[in-house]
Amino acid sequence: MLNILVLNGPNLNMLGQREPALYGTQTLDDIIKELRERARSLAARIEHVQSNDEGVLVAQLQASQKKFDGIILNPAAYTHTSVALRDALQTITVPCVEVHLTNTAAREEFRRFSLTAGACLGQIMGFGAFGYHLALIALVNYLKSALKSGQSAR
Amino acid sequence: MLNILVLNGPNLNMLGQREPALYGTQTLDDIIKELRERARSLAARIEHVQSNDEGVLVAQLQASQKKFDGIILNPAAYTHTSVALRDALQTITVPCVEVHLTNTAAREEFRRFSLTAGACLGQIMGFGAFGYHLALIALVNYLKSALKSGQSAR
Amino acid sequence: MLNILVLNGPNLNMLGQREPALYGTQTLDDIIKELRERARSLAARIEHVQSNDEGVLVAQLQASQKKFDGIILNPAAYTHTSVALRDALQTITVPCVEVHLTNTAAREEFRRFSLTAGACLGQIMGFGAFGYHLALIALVNYLKSALKSGQSAR
Amino acid sequence: MLNILVLNGPNLNMLGQREPALYGTQTLDDIIKELRERARSLAARIEHVQSNDEGVLVAQLQASQKKFDGIILNPAAYTHTSVALRDALQTITVPCVEVHLTNTAAREEFRRFSLTAGACLGQIMGFGAFGYHLALIALVNYLKSALKSGQSAR
Amino acid sequence: MLNILVLNGPNLNMLGQREPALYGTQTLDDIIKELRERARSLAARIEHVQSNDEGVLVAQLQASQKKFDGIILNPAAYTHTSVALRDALQTITVPCVEVHLTNTAAREEFRRFSLTAGACLGQIMGFGAFGYHLALIALVNYLKSALKSGQSAR
Amino acid sequence: MLNILVLNGPNLNMLGQREPALYGTQTLDDIIKELRERARSLAARIEHVQSNDEGVLVAQLQASQKKFDGIILNPAAYTHTSVALRDALQTITVPCVEVHLTNTAAREEFRRFSLTAGACLGQIMGFGAFGYHLALIALVNYLKSALKSGQSAR
Amino acid sequence: MLNILVLNGPNLNMLGQREPALYGTQTLDDIIKELRERARSLAARIEHVQSNDEGVLVAQLQASQKKFDGIILNPAAYTHTSVALRDALQTITVPCVEVHLTNTAAREEFRRFSLTAGACLGQIMGFGAFGYHLALIALVNYLKSALKSGQSAR
Amino acid sequence: MLNILVLNGPNLNMLGQREPALYGTQTLDDIIKELRERARSLAARIEHVQSNDEGVLVAQLQASQKKFDGIILNPAAYTHTSVALRDALQTITVPCVEVHLTNTAAREEFRRFSLTAGACLGQIMGFGAFGYHLALIALVNYLKSALKSGQSAR
Amino acid sequence: MLNILVLNGPNLNMLGQREPALYGTQTLDDIIKELRERARSLAARIEHVQSNDEGVLVAQLQASQKKFDGIILNPAAYTHTSVALRDALQTITVPCVEVHLTNTAAREEFRRFSLTAGACLGQIMGFGAFGYHLALIALVNYLKSALKSGQSAR
Amino acid sequence: MLNILVLNGPNLNMLGQREPALYGTQTLDDIIKELRERARSLAARIEHVQSNDEGVLVAQLQASQKKFDGIILNPAAYTHTSVALRDALQTITVPCVEVHLTNTAAREEFRRFSLTAGACLGQIMGFGAFGYHLALIALVNYLKSALKSGQSAR
Amino acid sequence: MLNILVLNGPNLNMLGQREPALYGTQTLDDIIKELRERARSLAARIEHVQSNDEGVLVAQLQASQKKFDGIILNPAAYTHTSVALRDALQTITVPCVEVHLTNTAAREEFRRFSLTAGACLGQIMGFGAFGYHLALIALVNYLKSALKSGQSAR
Amino acid sequence: MLNILVLNGPNLNMLGQREPALYGTQTLDDIIKELRERARSLAARIEHVQSNDEGVLVAQLQASQKKFDGIILNPAAYTHTSVALRDALQTITVPCVEVHLTNTAAREEFRRFSLTAGACLGQIMGFGAFGYHLALIALVNYLKSALKSGQSAR
Repeated sequence: MLNILVLNGPNLNMLGQREPALYGTQTLDDIIKELRERARSLAARIEHVQSNDEGVLVAQLQASQKKFDGIILNPAAYTHTSVALRDALQTITVPCVEVHLTNTAAREEFRRFSLTAGACLGQIMGFGAFGYHLALIALVNYLKSALKSGQSAR
Repeated sequence: MLNILVLNGPNLNMLGQREPALYGTQTLDDIIKELRERARSLAARIEHVQSNDEGVLVAQLQASQKKFDGIILNPAAYTHTSVALRDALQTITVPCVEVHLTNTAAREEFRRFSLTAGACLGQIMGFGAFGYHLALIALVNYLKSALKSGQSAR
Repeated sequence: MLNILVLNGPNLNMLGQREPALYGTQTLDDIIKELRERARSLAARIEHVQSNDEGVLVAQLQASQKKFDGIILNPAAYTHTSVALRDALQTITVPCVEVHLTNTAAREEFRRFSLTAGACLGQIMGFGAFGYHLALIALVNYLKSALKSGQSAR
Repeated sequence: MLNILVLNGPNLNMLGQREPALYGTQTLDDIIKELRERARSLAARIEHVQSNDEGVLVAQLQASQKKFDGIILNPAAYTHTSVALRDALQTITVPCVEVHLTNTAAREEFRRFSLTAGACLGQIMGFGAFGYHLALIALVNYLKSALKSGQSAR
Repeated sequence: MLNILVLNGPNLNMLGQREPALYGTQTLDDIIKELRERARSLAARIEHVQSNDEGVLVAQLQASQKKFDGIILNPAAYTHTSVALRDALQTITVPCVEVHLTNTAAREEFRRFSLTAGACLGQIMGFGAFGYHLALIALVNYLKSALKSGQSAR
Repeated sequence: MLNILVLNGPNLNMLGQREPALYGTQTLDDIIKELRERARSLAARIEHVQSNDEGVLVAQLQASQKKFDGIILNPAAYTHTSVALRDALQTITVPCVEVHLTNTAAREEFRRFSLTAGACLGQIMGFGAFGYHLALIALVNYLKSALKSGQSAR
Repeated sequence: MLNILVLNGPNLNMLGQREPALYGTQTLDDIIKELRERARSLAARIEHVQSNDEGVLVAQLQASQKKFDGIILNPAAYTHTSVALRDALQTITVPCVEVHLTNTAAREEFRRFSLTAGACLGQIMGFGAFGYHLALIALVNYLKSALKSGQSAR
Repeated sequence: MLNILVLNGPNLNMLGQREPALYGTQTLDDIIKELRERARSLAARIEHVQSNDEGVLVAQLQASQKKFDGIILNPAAYTHTSVALRDALQTITVPCVEVHLTNTAAREEFRRFSLTAGACLGQIMGFGAFGYHLALIALVNYLKSALKSGQSAR
Repeated sequence: MLNILVLNGPNLNMLGQREPALYGTQTLDDIIKELRERARSLAARIEHVQSNDEGVLVAQLQASQKKFDGIILNPAAYTHTSVALRDALQTITVPCVEVHLTNTAAREEFRRFSLTAGACLGQIMGFGAFGYHLALIALVNYLKSALKSGQSAR
Repeated sequence: MLNILVLNGPNLNMLGQREPALYGTQTLDDIIKELRERARSLAARIEHVQSNDEGVLVAQLQASQKKFDGIILNPAAYTHTSVALRDALQTITVPCVEVHLTNTAAREEFRRFSLTAGACLGQIMGFGAFGYHLALIALVNYLKSALKSGQSAR
Repeated sequence: MLNILVLNGPNLNMLGQREPALYGTQTLDDIIKELRERARSLAARIEHVQSNDEGVLVAQLQASQKKFDGIILNPAAYTHTSVALRDALQTITVPCVEVHLTNTAAREEFRRFSLTAGACLGQIMGFGAFGYHLALIALVNYLKSALKSGQSAR
Repeated sequence: MLNILVLNGPNLNMLGQREPALYGTQTLDDIIKELRERARSLAARIEHVQSNDEGVLVAQLQASQKKFDGIILNPAAYTHTSVALRDALQTITVPCVEVHLTNTAAREEFRRFSLTAGACLGQIMGFGAFGYHLALIALVNYLKSALKSGQSAR
């Protein structure tokens, strides 16, 4: 059984209400519920944390080292401004996949650059809530390959 | 009766002590007290929150959707760095007025650009504590026009 | 009785016709008429000048030194390009409030930077024609405080 | 009969004398005279104004709304510096064609960017005085298509 | 049966030989063979084209309009330099997913910006050859949702 | 009889289908057909080549030296990225007019700068398909003047 | 007895585990323990706070005004992004020394600029944990000089 | 007898009142009066024009071609923003010396770059009103050398 | 016998005709003929390919891996724009020398930066056609040293 | 008697030989000889030093504090690169006038910015060797005014 | 006994006289004398060199390789401009500590970036002359740790 | 017999010791000795000067005018910072070839731009010590062609 941390940044608790034309009408609870089902079918277990607080997100990443096999991270607004999250990602060795609901390459200039992506395994963006499913599939695939080849992941 | 949230960002709790030549000698409590009186005369009620914490400010903006008719926001230092506050402002539909005590156009280069102003109704800066009063007058005027014309504000 | 100069820059004579979705449907005459009423209630008198000409605006600011207690300035397009207006503002000691009808922070990149605001008392933007009323209230408040404390304004 | 305003900016009154290797030896009067003949053959009438003054040019554009079907504008030096002309162009709905005598793409760096072109129908540059003829042909063609399709031009 | 075009840009024909530490040891043929199997299990059919030629890639995108339900595109080096590919993507209405084998956010500065991503549905990067599988899953999911809701995809 | 090469860059073969709101509904064949008629009336003959391939466009320009009196070039996407086309234009002495269907000054930032225009006689943009007609008129006028004054064109 | 606040920013609680090649193998507890011994020998007393939270760090700086004679601050990731910490430092008059474990001048581009250093007495970087000792020696030396000369520190 | 035009830009009519610490206490009339005396001793005659208006300054430069042997120009604020003045200077062949009262290299960033200086003979700055005297001496010296060598000036 | 690929980019087929003042009057055939003679004297054999096509040049580099001991590359215009050529150079292990006929440091700004040079052994520029001879001498010297020291080249 | 140091930077010893079209045909000795005569007529004495060495120039400025009443400095190439010369100028209180033979505003981009001018009294450029005479006149005038007003110069 | 080179750059020989408000009133001799005493107490010996000359400083660094265990370097103005000093630091393996008397982060923009710091062990700034003492303590501590662990320093 | 000056900049006297992985293990003496042999075989004579001092290098270039037929210059660190060397190169008419041991295009950002190359005949980089041989061959070839065509070199 693989343990996966799903970590969501600021304003993602508002999904369903937040600019629905951009972010969709599903709530975060709905998304996580569907994701848990997917996880089960992949022999994985999900723990979900959302916070609007940079410090809390940093602490969650730090604590993941001992408890999780992989991380799915949507840093939301902190993607573009948080050196602290980048440092936290480099502090741990748990592999992480960055997810964005929207295609940030088609939005405002200041959303073009991700400080955190360079410290992740990879990045998935533009597929709405389904992006979390893709990230989960990617992570499970990665962890199984790593296991198979006898090395620790990342 | 209009319900207005007054939201103050980092270091504004230090007013009176903080670089008085720049920010004046009144404490934040004094300012809010005077503002409440002004509010009463305008048939409005004020709730005041100050926080040094970006996450707390984001949460306050999110929660305002159901409880307030308008917001007066002084994001202080986060004006220039917080995509999270901008996203929170775009998540809600409550109209918001940005206030700065000082005239930031006459200060350091890094205070010239506001990430949050573009997601607000308007901005008032340079009038010290009286700026909050101007913001309140602006907000009440805006909300009454909106009411009169039968549309929801913003 | 306080004497206030209201000085409007290029294309503001076209209000009512000019991109009404952005700038509203009121004409400049309507706005000034309402502002005069507000002024009366605040024991102030308004003189209004509009010009499309940078040189004329500079001359008006220069001449204000002897005739006015305060200035409300909407430099319009010259906000972003006129060092001459900034120099004129620094030449005089009459306090000035900068007003913009729209929230320039939500518009084109080249409208982000104001050359003139740094030479003013403060700036108010995004409240349409009501911005002039807020500027008047701000100016009167400022001038009265200055009078009370026995110092000349600014 | 189509009424066309030809509006020329600063230093174009010096044509013939001004850097003839770059701008040619014809005077502005010669150019306009030939253009009037072309106009006649296209069932159009030309009114010509030249000014070195940004404010006068702005006023001419404003006034064109009621009197002209189209505008040919050579903003000369103001092309690169005048937000006021751009705003004036956006204030009116008369279609405008921007003309430059020289190919500004082959000149100094500061002539590369046009503030006004984005508010015009199109731009023609590099063909000397004949550029005005091309602009006239373009404008007449555009206005006739608009007439034919029953919509107002632009 | 969904028809998917897999389009690979310059130097991807060298996979297996090209900087294996970065790009892996599988050849492009191996990758496509595995991807076809995945496609079959998802009721999709894959057509694969690789070219080192910008013009050929542009033509393939243009031709896809009539023949394919979706596109998986790895523009490789052209990601960062080709306005022509971006224009081709905007010319067609077939939904496209951009894939990168490596995590470009962790590489050279000039690989940070994608000209093409803004004209795609979304982007997946950093998962090696498995990225194509994720793109296929994403595309099939997107196309089925579109079908279900009765609208044409994109 | 003047021989004119009309050279069209990438994605222009898709006219009619490509973002019709921007580029119009006429196909390239329709445009060229109408242009041939115009040419005939001006005692000119047109040869038309469209290619999505930078190398092919470069070769066409090189070959034009011996076969054509003038060139009408719409480099499309390559306008902003091709030093090779600029070099080809500087290699030959046949005069060239650059045409753009849309007014690129009113579009994305990366379409503002033309690498090729500085190596052309002039540029015409924003008049849709009629821009080719204007370019033809400009070119014929230029070639006749050159002939008249007994010098070779350019 | 001098009271010194040692304030550590995000991810410094992970020392020992965090990229040991860069940051060393000592834990933060070990470092502080050794620093307390040094403090004792210098007639100083240390209070230590670490937080991953920008708001908490701001609050600690604010509260230091009444309780401490000096501050040793390692803002870690917030060095490069926090206007709030800079404002807090300018709010208080307690002298502060900025410390970095690594030589940031030899690391990533985004670590080159410190927003906070300009509001400190000085900065020490590149000496690992020993940097805290140097900062303590610097601070005690500074405070004693200030005492001797009868002025309040800073 | 040499005829020299002294041309002063915006806000220089305010000398004596304008930021006296920077610009001195002499009025423009005083300065010109002293300059006329100097001119007499150098067998030169001065005509003086001051204007706040860019267009008027442009016209004065244009008209100087037939009436003056040399120009002393203080473009003031327009130094940094006026392409029109630069173009006017390049239109005429009368040699011009640029003067600034203050040392602009020691002032705000936006005063560092002069658009006009590159079209002048030379530039003198930082010597207050005496700078006009230096410019006159420089101009007379230049004109006499030109005369002596039998070539027309510039 | 060493096998050397000489690969020439766009517009180099026009040598002799192309801006002779800059590029000389020799044709590419002349240059290659002379280079073959030099090669013979150095116990090397040359194969020459010129293409205007980025994709063809990429393919030539890819194919060189199995057939050549070294490459002399003049990427011409693609020097400054082709990530694809850089990637191709990094894909192969054959050592490559970059040659430019002109001294690009003395030409237009956009010719200053080479995307490809960083993936080559070295660069030679400014010596006209003789630069190819220098490159050949450099390459032969390098390959012999590598042979002598028993390691494979590069 | 006023003692003036004339300090010339690198390559000025080559005057007469160095790009005579730009710098004139007089040698430095000729220039200084003429300047000494001018000095005598102004009751001043000149000491002249030329060096190609930044360190020597720095030392000369340092030593001037005790020996000279004023400095005429032509930093030549070091104008644009030497923080050391700027620091030396700020170390001393002797007033300094910066001179350039050519009008640097009309030359290469990298000659536009002067690091040293901001630490001088003023700057004179573009008048060839006569610029030294102007600087001397300016310096003597400044020193006499300072003497007259009883304050030490600068 | 450890041998330490103290190397001071341009204008530091002027300490005591040079802007005393910024740099203090002690002379360099005083500072070095006190530093020698500190050195003695730490079983170290100091050799001191000051030069205004970049080349001399480079040579001193080069020569240090054979004679010194560590270096304390205040590059002064050359900090921001000397690639030569950086290269010299990278040429030797003697560990070096960079010292600045002032807090350069609180001064002019051009003092923000240090070319040399990235080639040093660490940097200490803002503590006036005491900074040299801190550097010495840091260096001795570093050298002893290196000795203890049996590896050569750096 | 051709006289060639070989001029080497700062830190090149340390070759053999300086970062041998980058710069090789040969000393400068070894390199020059081998180069003299090469020179002899080409009927040339070499004079060699190395200096760490910008001023000395400038003086050497100046003095070369009368004594040398050509120059081989490795400006080392001064390549990127010395306007003085560029000016010296433009002062003389002796042709110069710039050499770099390493391929600077593959190193730090600040080594990308050469201030001096634009004033040289050409540049050779990346071939280690053999680069000097290539430069000598290039120079001799250039000088002989110049001789043959009867014009003075450069």
